[in-house]
Amino acid sequence: MIPEQIEHLGIAVPSIAEALPYYENVLGMTCYKTEEVADQKVKTAFLKVGEVKIELLEPTSPESTIAKFIEKNGGRGGMHHIAYKVSNIEEKLAEVEAKGAALIDKTPRPGADGMTIAFLHPKSTAGVLTEFCEKK
Amino acid sequence: MIPEQIEHLGIAVPSIAEALPYYENVLGMTCYKTEEVADQKVKTAFLKVGEVKIELLEPTSPESTIAKFIEKNGGRGGMHHIAYKVSNIEEKLAEVEAKGAALIDKTPRPGADGMTIAFLHPKSTAGVLTEFCEKK
Repeated sequence: MIPEQIEHLGIAVPSIAEALPYYENVLGMTCYKTEEVADQKVKTAFLKVGEVKIELLEPTSPESTIAKFIEKNGGRGGMHHIAYKVSNIEEKLAEVEAKGAALIDKTPRPGADGMTIAFLHPKSTAGVLTEFCEKK
Repeated sequence: MIPEQIEHLGIAVPSIAEALPYYENVLGMTCYKTEEVADQKVKTAFLKVGEVKIELLEPTSPESTIAKFIEKNGGRGGMHHIAYKVSNIEEKLAEVEAKGAALIDKTPRPGADGMTIAFLHPKSTAGVLTEFCEKK
């Protein structure tokens, strides 16, 4: 497989309201969508630069993995994951698992922005939490 | 300003030799260039997915900022910076500084892969170490 492109970059932030002025006023991007993803306990905000989306992730609960990431990072936000755009996600997951990748999600599940997603464990991806995304 | 696209993602790795099999064999990308950047005390390896380059960064000295990043990250690699492609980098740095961004490099300097680069401080970029790149 070769992923088609980076679909989005997931960036953890303590507060979307505090992060957006940097993206919108300093970099000049436009937030085109916000969405709450209840089962991941996050609010998201999407911007786009070139072909890549930037997904800001704000925790809505201290139980959120994003809240734990921020806590571990000294209370600051930071880059959380890379998401690659793939076609036929089930086939691609089977292929990378056969090649040694450790899957967090054996079965794809619904993610933000209408995507079907699955995560790969960073222990098998050279340290970077990695997501595959498909627009079904 | 609006950056044209993400030029590359900088990913810190303890060892390029150990990280490349994931990118090349599992994801199917091709490393098209390796380069040592002496003044940053790193070896780099470049791959490409869609319009974005992935820049793997391996420290060549314990004094390297990449070595310190990996040490702080429990000995593991991880996402280190986002680099945006811009035109007229001097003008863009002045523009974002006037809008409140803190510049690590007030004056652009030579970076890897033939680019002219400058870094913005993560305290002013919502937690993400950020680079501007221009192919002069």
